Amino acid sequence: MSPTQTPTPASETPQAQRVVISVDAMGSDKGPAAIVAGCSRAAKADASIFFLLHGQQRALETLVAAKKHLQGRCQIIDAPGVVSMEDKPAQVMRTGKQTSMWSALESVRKGEATVCVSCGNTGALMALSVIRLRKIPGVYRPAIAVLWPSRNPQGFNVMLDAGADIRADERDLLQYALMGASYARNGLDIARPRVGLLNVGTEEFKGRAEIQAANDLIAENAATARFDYVGFVEGSDLPGKRCDVIVTDGFTGNIALKTGEGTASLIRDFLREAFNYTPLSRLAALLAYTSLKRLSARIDPRRVNGGVFLGLNGTVVKSHGSADATGVSAAIKLAVQLAQSGFNQKLAARISAATMLASDTGETETEQGDSAAQEAGA
Amino acid sequence: MSPTQTPTPASETPQAQRVVISVDAMGSDKGPAAIVAGCSRAAKADASIFFLLHGQQRALETLVAAKKHLQGRCQIIDAPGVVSMEDKPAQVMRTGKQTSMWSALESVRKGEATVCVSCGNTGALMALSVIRLRKIPGVYRPAIAVLWPSRNPQGFNVMLDAGADIRADERDLLQYALMGASYARNGLDIARPRVGLLNVGTEEFKGRAEIQAANDLIAENAATARFDYVGFVEGSDLPGKRCDVIVTDGFTGNIALKTGEGTASLIRDFLREAFNYTPLSRLAALLAYTSLKRLSARIDPRRVNGGVFLGLNGTVVKSHGSADATGVSAAIKLAVQLAQSGFNQKLAARISAATMLASDTGETETEQGDSAAQEAGA
Repeated sequence: MSPTQTPTPASETPQAQRVVISVDAMGSDKGPAAIVAGCSRAAKADASIFFLLHGQQRALETLVAAKKHLQGRCQIIDAPGVVSMEDKPAQVMRTGKQTSMWSALESVRKGEATVCVSCGNTGALMALSVIRLRKIPGVYRPAIAVLWPSRNPQGFNVMLDAGADIRADERDLLQYALMGASYARNGLDIARPRVGLLNVGTEEFKGRAEIQAANDLIAENAATARFDYVGFVEGSDLPGKRCDVIVTDGFTGNIALKTGEGTASLIRDFLREAFNYTPLSRLAALLAYTSLKRLSARIDPRRVNGGVFLGLNGTVVKSHGSADATGVSAAIKLAVQLAQSGFNQKLAARISAATMLASDTGETETEQGDSAAQEAGA
Repeated sequence: MSPTQTPTPASETPQAQRVVISVDAMGSDKGPAAIVAGCSRAAKADASIFFLLHGQQRALETLVAAKKHLQGRCQIIDAPGVVSMEDKPAQVMRTGKQTSMWSALESVRKGEATVCVSCGNTGALMALSVIRLRKIPGVYRPAIAVLWPSRNPQGFNVMLDAGADIRADERDLLQYALMGASYARNGLDIARPRVGLLNVGTEEFKGRAEIQAANDLIAENAATARFDYVGFVEGSDLPGKRCDVIVTDGFTGNIALKTGEGTASLIRDFLREAFNYTPLSRLAALLAYTSLKRLSARIDPRRVNGGVFLGLNGTVVKSHGSADATGVSAAIKLAVQLAQSGFNQKLAARISAATMLASDTGETETEQGDSAAQEAGA
């Protein structure tokens, strides 16, 4: 969906190459200053970005005025309400019309921006995204895909769903595989992603009934959807190199994600303590400064800061609530890449092809659907 | 269950204080040498241990002869068969009678040893343990409890079930809470353990139906069973300090465990690479040697090497298949502590008290059951 109604302010970039990102500037734990700083950093690095900044106008004007890289590169859209981390999704859906989150999604719905970025309350953001953007035809259950630091050359694996949805059946898991492969292709530049299904063992006879059924369904669809299916994988493969995309239900995915983050954070703290233990170890830490910095960057959650909502008419990037300027600019960088690759249209074509395949409407239609998806590079 | 039929060889320790541990000496990835070396290390550190070593007699005799700390401290029981990592549990149950695993469990069943230690195939070990030792009356589904490095003063949290069982209802989750609290009390010396239930959020309204039901059941039983219930916890709390015992179903627990191990292993490798990057960083690594050693010890999976099977008539400690002498001796140390604390009788009393409570057989019986459990320190 390219912008149909582009915002007015002058830009140095020609309209054609310009990427418009809609940003919810409120709702982060660190306040709008961190978000504006992140936008500025992203704007400095990439001249093609134009921002629609949604939030309290006065506050945002002051913050934007102080950033030279944002001059003439953004439009502020006044939205006085803020969705807090404590707000219940149902309540936000009823009364959230004046909020920056609602307003930021509205720009994507109207086609003014391609991707929306928000640091706000995940539950409320997903609920609003579903009712405002609506699901892509054929998608039963949207998913949140996250990037996981890994041993693969691209540095990350994709895991989905991390959305804490408490139930997913085999149809959902198949769609996660299709959407995850599409995301890996367009977000991580992997031409032929390898997809695995998370289970408690790699043997064929193990696991829940819906996982067994999904195993067959995904295997059947792999060739058509141009990915390689590696079968069952285990928790240890999330940071591993057996596959690029790991499919699981939202309950398990959410727990795996938080377990991984918790483990990394524990080790970071232990490492800090280890280097503070003796004068000699503190000296060693000084000498090893650049090495430790390099390690820290590789496992820094801010670098992979961007869960992506998949399966909606429009892409939504969810950044950590506690993200700072580095985190926000990483999320924006991801949003720009997805916008430039035309990811969402490709994803819709891929889902459509698979739905035709599944509905058994005859060979001709199936082949048409599939070749349309292939042409789109989904 | 104290030994009723003690093995014959002379020991330097008086019979009364002696702890007899039954060891499956085969089935490890590293062969019987690593297991015998682990026994020797444990025997050196603790004069009260006596071993029943099950496996191929000739091979074990040679290995034991070379270890001075094992002289007069172990009896070899010939069992020529070996359960391999590839063997299917059902097959081992039918044809495994001559294996070292079967034989090692038999010593516990007959009361010759208090605890069995094995590095073998987890599925086969659980299947054999259930049919040979049988479940404690009142236990529906045995569990595997693992130790998780944490920020708590004791250095570890208990998580259960890690057994890859694909289904647990609210009754099972309540029993895991009871058994986990008992294990924390006897294995980690925590007088009043804090118990949490793993979920996708800490809010009351989230999560699957059986988890909601378990939340109520565990809360109701906490005071009687002398633990504190902290409610729902998330994946990030597994290494955290919010609670000491984390309850979850075997599917989720298995995936969390492998995700945590995979993440720790990834960071270890990244750390090694970071310190190998430049001559300066290699020098720093030399200076930081003891600090890095200290860190490494804190997150070393070998130190927490010992999943414990709970809910059976006898305690079984499952050590990693790839455990070396350090890992095996850690598992034996844990086995000895559980044996000395009379853990399994206390656990049985605790389950019995809760079962009476649940069956609503009247206040008198309930109170009797509970006071028996309290007396036993379960």
